[in-house]
Amino acid sequence: MNGMKLDDMLKAFFIEDIGDRDLTGESIFSEHEAGTFSFWAKEAGIFCGRAVIERGFRLVDETISTSVLKQDGDQVKKGECLARITGPYRSLLAGERVILNLVQRMSGIATAAAAAVKETEGTRARICDTRKTVPGLRMLEKYAVRTGGAFNHRNGLYDAIMLKDNHIAFAGGIKQAVTKAKQSCGHTIKIEVEIESEEQLKEAVQAGADIIMFDNCTPAQIEAWLPIVPAHIETEASGGIELETIRDYALTGIGWISLGALTHSVQALDISARVEMKGEVLHGIN
Amino acid sequence: MNGMKLDDMLKAFFIEDIGDRDLTGESIFSEHEAGTFSFWAKEAGIFCGRAVIERGFRLVDETISTSVLKQDGDQVKKGECLARITGPYRSLLAGERVILNLVQRMSGIATAAAAAVKETEGTRARICDTRKTVPGLRMLEKYAVRTGGAFNHRNGLYDAIMLKDNHIAFAGGIKQAVTKAKQSCGHTIKIEVEIESEEQLKEAVQAGADIIMFDNCTPAQIEAWLPIVPAHIETEASGGIELETIRDYALTGIGWISLGALTHSVQALDISARVEMKGEVLHGIN
Amino acid sequence: MNGMKLDDMLKAFFIEDIGDRDLTGESIFSEHEAGTFSFWAKEAGIFCGRAVIERGFRLVDETISTSVLKQDGDQVKKGECLARITGPYRSLLAGERVILNLVQRMSGIATAAAAAVKETEGTRARICDTRKTVPGLRMLEKYAVRTGGAFNHRNGLYDAIMLKDNHIAFAGGIKQAVTKAKQSCGHTIKIEVEIESEEQLKEAVQAGADIIMFDNCTPAQIEAWLPIVPAHIETEASGGIELETIRDYALTGIGWISLGALTHSVQALDISARVEMKGEVLHGIN
Amino acid sequence: MNGMKLDDMLKAFFIEDIGDRDLTGESIFSEHEAGTFSFWAKEAGIFCGRAVIERGFRLVDETISTSVLKQDGDQVKKGECLARITGPYRSLLAGERVILNLVQRMSGIATAAAAAVKETEGTRARICDTRKTVPGLRMLEKYAVRTGGAFNHRNGLYDAIMLKDNHIAFAGGIKQAVTKAKQSCGHTIKIEVEIESEEQLKEAVQAGADIIMFDNCTPAQIEAWLPIVPAHIETEASGGIELETIRDYALTGIGWISLGALTHSVQALDISARVEMKGEVLHGIN
Amino acid sequence: MNGMKLDDMLKAFFIEDIGDRDLTGESIFSEHEAGTFSFWAKEAGIFCGRAVIERGFRLVDETISTSVLKQDGDQVKKGECLARITGPYRSLLAGERVILNLVQRMSGIATAAAAAVKETEGTRARICDTRKTVPGLRMLEKYAVRTGGAFNHRNGLYDAIMLKDNHIAFAGGIKQAVTKAKQSCGHTIKIEVEIESEEQLKEAVQAGADIIMFDNCTPAQIEAWLPIVPAHIETEASGGIELETIRDYALTGIGWISLGALTHSVQALDISARVEMKGEVLHGIN
Amino acid sequence: MNGMKLDDMLKAFFIEDIGDRDLTGESIFSEHEAGTFSFWAKEAGIFCGRAVIERGFRLVDETISTSVLKQDGDQVKKGECLARITGPYRSLLAGERVILNLVQRMSGIATAAAAAVKETEGTRARICDTRKTVPGLRMLEKYAVRTGGAFNHRNGLYDAIMLKDNHIAFAGGIKQAVTKAKQSCGHTIKIEVEIESEEQLKEAVQAGADIIMFDNCTPAQIEAWLPIVPAHIETEASGGIELETIRDYALTGIGWISLGALTHSVQALDISARVEMKGEVLHGIN
Repeated sequence: MNGMKLDDMLKAFFIEDIGDRDLTGESIFSEHEAGTFSFWAKEAGIFCGRAVIERGFRLVDETISTSVLKQDGDQVKKGECLARITGPYRSLLAGERVILNLVQRMSGIATAAAAAVKETEGTRARICDTRKTVPGLRMLEKYAVRTGGAFNHRNGLYDAIMLKDNHIAFAGGIKQAVTKAKQSCGHTIKIEVEIESEEQLKEAVQAGADIIMFDNCTPAQIEAWLPIVPAHIETEASGGIELETIRDYALTGIGWISLGALTHSVQALDISARVEMKGEVLHGIN
Repeated sequence: MNGMKLDDMLKAFFIEDIGDRDLTGESIFSEHEAGTFSFWAKEAGIFCGRAVIERGFRLVDETISTSVLKQDGDQVKKGECLARITGPYRSLLAGERVILNLVQRMSGIATAAAAAVKETEGTRARICDTRKTVPGLRMLEKYAVRTGGAFNHRNGLYDAIMLKDNHIAFAGGIKQAVTKAKQSCGHTIKIEVEIESEEQLKEAVQAGADIIMFDNCTPAQIEAWLPIVPAHIETEASGGIELETIRDYALTGIGWISLGALTHSVQALDISARVEMKGEVLHGIN
Repeated sequence: MNGMKLDDMLKAFFIEDIGDRDLTGESIFSEHEAGTFSFWAKEAGIFCGRAVIERGFRLVDETISTSVLKQDGDQVKKGECLARITGPYRSLLAGERVILNLVQRMSGIATAAAAAVKETEGTRARICDTRKTVPGLRMLEKYAVRTGGAFNHRNGLYDAIMLKDNHIAFAGGIKQAVTKAKQSCGHTIKIEVEIESEEQLKEAVQAGADIIMFDNCTPAQIEAWLPIVPAHIETEASGGIELETIRDYALTGIGWISLGALTHSVQALDISARVEMKGEVLHGIN
Repeated sequence: MNGMKLDDMLKAFFIEDIGDRDLTGESIFSEHEAGTFSFWAKEAGIFCGRAVIERGFRLVDETISTSVLKQDGDQVKKGECLARITGPYRSLLAGERVILNLVQRMSGIATAAAAAVKETEGTRARICDTRKTVPGLRMLEKYAVRTGGAFNHRNGLYDAIMLKDNHIAFAGGIKQAVTKAKQSCGHTIKIEVEIESEEQLKEAVQAGADIIMFDNCTPAQIEAWLPIVPAHIETEASGGIELETIRDYALTGIGWISLGALTHSVQALDISARVEMKGEVLHGIN
Repeated sequence: MNGMKLDDMLKAFFIEDIGDRDLTGESIFSEHEAGTFSFWAKEAGIFCGRAVIERGFRLVDETISTSVLKQDGDQVKKGECLARITGPYRSLLAGERVILNLVQRMSGIATAAAAAVKETEGTRARICDTRKTVPGLRMLEKYAVRTGGAFNHRNGLYDAIMLKDNHIAFAGGIKQAVTKAKQSCGHTIKIEVEIESEEQLKEAVQAGADIIMFDNCTPAQIEAWLPIVPAHIETEASGGIELETIRDYALTGIGWISLGALTHSVQALDISARVEMKGEVLHGIN
Repeated sequence: MNGMKLDDMLKAFFIEDIGDRDLTGESIFSEHEAGTFSFWAKEAGIFCGRAVIERGFRLVDETISTSVLKQDGDQVKKGECLARITGPYRSLLAGERVILNLVQRMSGIATAAAAAVKETEGTRARICDTRKTVPGLRMLEKYAVRTGGAFNHRNGLYDAIMLKDNHIAFAGGIKQAVTKAKQSCGHTIKIEVEIESEEQLKEAVQAGADIIMFDNCTPAQIEAWLPIVPAHIETEASGGIELETIRDYALTGIGWISLGALTHSVQALDISARVEMKGEVLHGIN
């Protein structure tokens, strides 16, 4: 990830939440009262967000020291401590909510990605994401997908061509659409074509598509049609695939399975923050 | 909502998705080929996001005209058309994904808020949100909560005091914490105190709290303790309350019920975008 | 104060003043010629601006070391040294004007606030500010008000409801206006109502206002009407109150006195900067 | 003035004051209720701020129409109407405070500048400002100075050389300092030298200064020493000059008189905003 | 191109050049004196920059109307008029330098690209650019390359993999490097491998590279080795190729020829700006 | 140079090139694999860009250490090492292209400036630049001009008056134009007048111009007319002057010679980057 972009994002998020000041923290703690704060996994999953914790708290207050105990991608058990953060209480509490929101969301995405990847074991299929990310968080959400062992589909409208039914209809057919795409983009850009029938598949292969996306096809259809596709063309199954049906698709021999759900319906990993204060640990401070 | 802030947010989101250009759109459509595009509800719910559609497409291209057919807060049925947008295809497709992501999320939040509000019918309880919003989207998510008929809890750390267990422990008790808060903030700021026992409740009332939050209390506890609270002090139930248990809490006589789930686990409302092209309507272009 | 916001503000201010470079400093000093620089109080008052000095000079040049000899809120005497700053001359002189402008203004506000607070001694009245701050400096000016021992009224249009005569007239009366406000905002937001007569006061109390502002009322009126207000409702005197009349208002038993003059007519505290150069101290370099 | 910069400044100021929304305005007025709003002079002075009113309200809401009745620099009488603004109440009230704060400040500066200029009538002396402006507002404050008929001294550290006592001491004398300055800057940059004695004045003339600033000199000294200065070198009196003493300085034959007070101690021009509502005009809504 | 990004760039460029105001324009012209201004080709070439002219002048002043007489990509002859712009003189002159600088540079790039493309006539070779663009102008410079009929290589480090000698050496060979790349990136990203020998070429083909770049190879080498490469793998010649040698490379049968010189050594197209004033046309105002 | 502005520029440039991440670097190197990287001069010239290297790599990654072996302005020989940079490979390669692009360009400008200055040896003429810089890079390009021993003409429209033929025609003559300029600007701003004939020259002298620019005049004309200009007025030759003709102009006795070519047609200094890896040095990594 690009640390300069991450810092800019985090700063904007902190300003959104803190505004001019944390009224509560400033009223209770003096500037110098300091202590330790920790993050704990309240359920098992894949941890993701080390950079958010380290860079985030440093942005809030340079005097904070963080010790993240897990690597991104580590499997964590319920009850494990993920990170310890030491510094002025004012700063710890001012930064906590934003960082927790992000780490929970990123760990949730990584955990879901890992679960999807597990369904493909023993097959050549790989899992990837889509552009259905929360606006403003794409860099972080795509990173979390990779952390879980899955892959990124295109990052935006700028790094790959994706010819959908409406593009194809407008261009007058798959062949015409691919030709237009090749006339418009350089050789470093891949061209993906969405197909829904065997006829379209053949057209796409002939037109020179780099990737063929089987849109809302059944595993049976995909299995039947795959032999038509030469080895150097990537194949992708997409549309309405859920955790339960991943394996059926993976067993067809398809190369890639894309899942919008990885990022558009995130189940955050439950992580709690605790303050160690005057010797005793207090629970939940969010 | 502050339109100037909204425009800044939308612009950042479009740049995140479009980058330097939409490779696909620019390869298929000329600058001047124009058409119409519409959003349709694929399930019933509460619509939210009019300003996002209107201001969003205008930012992408001033020549686009939008006609949003629903007001924010309107109940929409499955299959209803929500908006029609006319302009150059390039611009329509460049803006579509970001706007759809936002409108689906906002409408999902509004729908969930309305469902929660429904559970309180006939009681004095009102539903409100928390700070568990996606970083960067708080203004939009809090707006969606209001659109669904619920209310906003504090917007950030800057507009209300919230004394939690750790603040109280550090200050040496509820009385001391409230006193510190009153010495630090002006009279336009409300002080909320989290309590977990009858004893704490009494302490909070005596200390002069403006709002008392019953943290993880059962409906029975709340009902039993509410008579202790004078009429001018607001009461709020919080912690682990779900759609199924809202009514139990609402029937206790509590004033407010806060639900983190309204924004932290959003079920987006399913909305599809369709392009009308050469006379025939094509489905889903996302 | 939010340090991340402060840094952004300071950086913008430095760029405004320095532009691409300090033509004079760069022509006279080499990059490495360094020395010491100090700030001195030329009159007595309350010091305010420690963070501006520390964070400001660090932004200009990380190699600068600052030693601020006073805490925010300290009473300083004429002739006292406030801070010593050591580093390259180029950097010291490039940052000096902006920092001095801010510290003088903030100290002036703190001094005025302290003078106002002094007038309330022995009464329960507290002094607060308004939104009449210089655009772009609100966070700093409101901080200076607190440094002087006074309090902040609402920070902006977003953190409290203030129903003025035009709102009330439009809504059709105080009762209707308060009702509308309560339907629109959550329980963490206070509702303040401006009143000008005993009748309006009674209406506001009955409508459930959280704060009642006596607008342009005389001390006699306030004293006469205060018994109408229950203890849990805050009271505020506002409009044309000056240092000379504060005590008259404070003695009425009012809870709060708001003073636009604290920030809209600031008498900067006179502070001079001196460079110690080649053993001898030179005066004023601003 | 640079309109693009002005828009950026205004937008930041509105966001500072409005935050996510005007709680009060949104609770009382619907989106579509519209009316008229006007600005009135409560005292006589020089009007300044037309662009702030026109561009400011347009930024808040494009549907607002503004009619500014005065030109910048016009003398206004107590009781005159300055501008009428028509649009949705929500938008009018959301923008009003920021715009009023600026226009009052700018008109105050213009009025003070005009008063100073008046003192120089019949002499060749011209009035100018300094860099003692409020951080973030320099473009507006320097514009206001010009609006009042005075002139701008350098805009920042980047557009003129100013050799003060410390620069001179460090360089080893006026001659050395001017030489260094000429070696460092091009011919489009003027070099100003601060002098305090006749000897220094002679040195500055010989060194080839473009401007000589008589720092804290008496009118008598200036009058005695001016004949030493050739016609093509500009002369400036500076330091502790107030409205009362301007004329004494102007009569010496000096070319320029710089006044820090024009911007560092601003007496805002009193301007009130009124809403015309349901046929009757209500006073002050700020 | 992304218009929102373009506007942001243009605004920053105008602020860089105009600062707080155009001293000269404001001193000579009143706010309302208006006229017409035109751009003329002083030499033949390919025009590029329509959006810069249209959006640029609109940003400076919304009342300006522009009429661009050429399409991007049009061949223009010496002496042809390219655009007419009408509006207040102040605004025309304030915006002119920045827009002219950009249009000259973009047209120069487009002209060079077209010249390079011409050398490939009758072959299958296509010309493309590199990342050697001026920092901050990549979107515009890559657009100009396309306008001249050439293509874009990757846009940045984020949209394609490029394995160079140091990556390969570190990974332990081409095979290992490609394998690592495939494990790290999704199927929408192409992997380009730099080769310098026949052996490396074979290794790259076997490793599954999507693009093979013949680095600093002679046309003879390329011609000899090309038969090794299967049809679905793109081939690119790079390194020290100049206008004079393009044809030699194009005749080898290579697919792509990349030219850093298109953007790193730009010969701006000579364009002059003329003001029509008081009936007579004055030349060059830049 | 203003370091705060430089950091902002560099950050924007890195984000332009890196986007969300360097796909290649992240696939080949782990986060912790580190090494050393160096810049070498591939041709002789003047080095410029120390701050870009130091601040640039620090922005990319704080753990990078840089050792720049040359001072800005140093003459470097072909084959000399300019800087060594040590840190994680990922960071070194992510930052390399942007920094190299800038340093090559700045060193190219400095080298060209030094060559121009050399042509003036033994004369009083000084070389200066113009506003024909690449938008967005003016601060850096003007710095490079100074590094080469030349000087800066005005920085933008905001720091000097330049009356060109169109301004003069519109004002009704040189005298009128200068008078207007003097009425509009303060005494710290210089007024430059463009002249093309002896008559205009006399008019400009009489009008009180501070600088007279001989526009497109021959050396013979300049030599003949210079005696008309008093010593305190600066003189400048401009228009179509190239390296070959500088000396002819310098010998006329003119004070300044301005060269647009210094920045508008930059020949970048050839600098290569090498990675030291596993004991052996690999060449070119751009």
